[in-house]
Amino acid sequence: MREASAAVGSFLLRLDCDTAAFCYQLGFFKLAFCRIAVYELGAMKKLFSILLVATIALIARAAIHTETVEYKQGDTTLEGYLAYDDSFSGKRPGVLVVHQWLGLTDYEKHRAEQLAALGYVAFCADIYGKGVRPKDTSEAGAEATKYKSNRQLLRARVNAGLDILEKNALVDPKRVAAIGYCFGGTTVIELARSGATIAGLVSFHGGLDSPTPADGKSIKCKVLVCHGADDPFEAPADLAAFEDEMRQANVDWTLIKYGGAVHSFTQPMAGNDNSKGAAYNERADRRSWADMKRFFVEIFQ
Amino acid sequence: MREASAAVGSFLLRLDCDTAAFCYQLGFFKLAFCRIAVYELGAMKKLFSILLVATIALIARAAIHTETVEYKQGDTTLEGYLAYDDSFSGKRPGVLVVHQWLGLTDYEKHRAEQLAALGYVAFCADIYGKGVRPKDTSEAGAEATKYKSNRQLLRARVNAGLDILEKNALVDPKRVAAIGYCFGGTTVIELARSGATIAGLVSFHGGLDSPTPADGKSIKCKVLVCHGADDPFEAPADLAAFEDEMRQANVDWTLIKYGGAVHSFTQPMAGNDNSKGAAYNERADRRSWADMKRFFVEIFQ
Repeated sequence: MREASAAVGSFLLRLDCDTAAFCYQLGFFKLAFCRIAVYELGAMKKLFSILLVATIALIARAAIHTETVEYKQGDTTLEGYLAYDDSFSGKRPGVLVVHQWLGLTDYEKHRAEQLAALGYVAFCADIYGKGVRPKDTSEAGAEATKYKSNRQLLRARVNAGLDILEKNALVDPKRVAAIGYCFGGTTVIELARSGATIAGLVSFHGGLDSPTPADGKSIKCKVLVCHGADDPFEAPADLAAFEDEMRQANVDWTLIKYGGAVHSFTQPMAGNDNSKGAAYNERADRRSWADMKRFFVEIFQ
Repeated sequence: MREASAAVGSFLLRLDCDTAAFCYQLGFFKLAFCRIAVYELGAMKKLFSILLVATIALIARAAIHTETVEYKQGDTTLEGYLAYDDSFSGKRPGVLVVHQWLGLTDYEKHRAEQLAALGYVAFCADIYGKGVRPKDTSEAGAEATKYKSNRQLLRARVNAGLDILEKNALVDPKRVAAIGYCFGGTTVIELARSGATIAGLVSFHGGLDSPTPADGKSIKCKVLVCHGADDPFEAPADLAAFEDEMRQANVDWTLIKYGGAVHSFTQPMAGNDNSKGAAYNERADRRSWADMKRFFVEIFQ
């Protein structure tokens, strides 16, 4: 019973880790407790005590395994980052994480660990290549431009990362998604435009423009775009063109505009000055992460 | 234990009623079962059996109370519809439901009953007046125009409905929201523009235009707009003006565009022919209802 309760405890813990879902639970626990108030409370208290104790016991045991993974695209060596919860076995959904223009940093690695804690196998792709880690925005801009101006190379690089994730023994290859930030947000859409058979993608403040909008017809997955409503780096014309691309290709797409958010709204290191055009927005970060998780639940059924 | 389990059973049942949240659970139950597979399964099976039986027992007992409520705005008699779950006691959040241009119909009453089943006190406001129930779209257009061309009257009518809800003994007046469809979607935004101290509003395919955009500065609540990305009845200029109104007033707003959805996407009676500009879209209906519920969880904390 202790181990079985630990499973439910862990399940509750995972919800607890998810602000939105936890609040969702909370709302209904309140109602549930209204009922309990007029019923017999003792047994329920006991049940939750068991789960709480089991959960704490489980936290001590849970462990996120992480490792650097070297792989290739053509002759180029790439260095990605894998993360999963090794406290339980069995295949599970996989999530590819694509980095922003600064290349694969601790930021994406932390996101992968967050995804692993939710029960997914997460793999951070490396688009730029082993050791290619821009020191500043000027280097980042130059590096990102190499790929944004060569979408075929960008597609080849991101597909190489997807291949690593899908071949992982813990991953159910029929339940794989891709998420990306800024440059990575553009990249995961290119992954879909390349015809990749993933279940869905989430683009966080990614560039949505495409030199070949007709490629939208190759998109087979569900698309969720999380966009800062005040993002000055996404021209209204590009946003409109993206929506048209989705319409023309009859894609299953949703676009969420977060009011008050500019570019990089999920990036704490972007600071809090919206006037710079890129800034962290705690509210939009929290909501978009929760929106992503709910999207995963739908696509991973 | 049976009664206590019934409370949890009911809690699970409520999730079960919510496709998105249920899928959310399902995703993690799968993970939980991965754990259980390597642990001892018997006790867990027993626990869920108890909850299932208790849930079925509770379904038989649960009851949604509904009643027609006559009230006034000025000298005009209005006839609303109240719904709540009377199988438990205690104050709970309230949700005002505002009808589409056809006036208060069984459609809004059903939505109120769905909200009651989720644990909220729901009240369908009557904007047009007792007995004023347009027979066709031509009558509906004429009636709706009376109010869209007289926003002060529209605000007075919707505030009268809000007053009834907030004074209900079962409602926590600090946790009240308003939702509306089409004409009602416009109306709940006008309610917020009138300075109403509600926690939030959800507009489903509502007209977003305003003759007095400066009134956005009176909006004190969180705003969620659920919009059909292909809605031909919302001019791009009106959509842009609405976003500007929200920006200028520094409102906490979110706009969700559902791909493939036109006007009336939540209305089964609208048929399935997008070429008519108004049609039901099961996917957008399901997702927007789930988005509304998650929004409620955030604003009702």
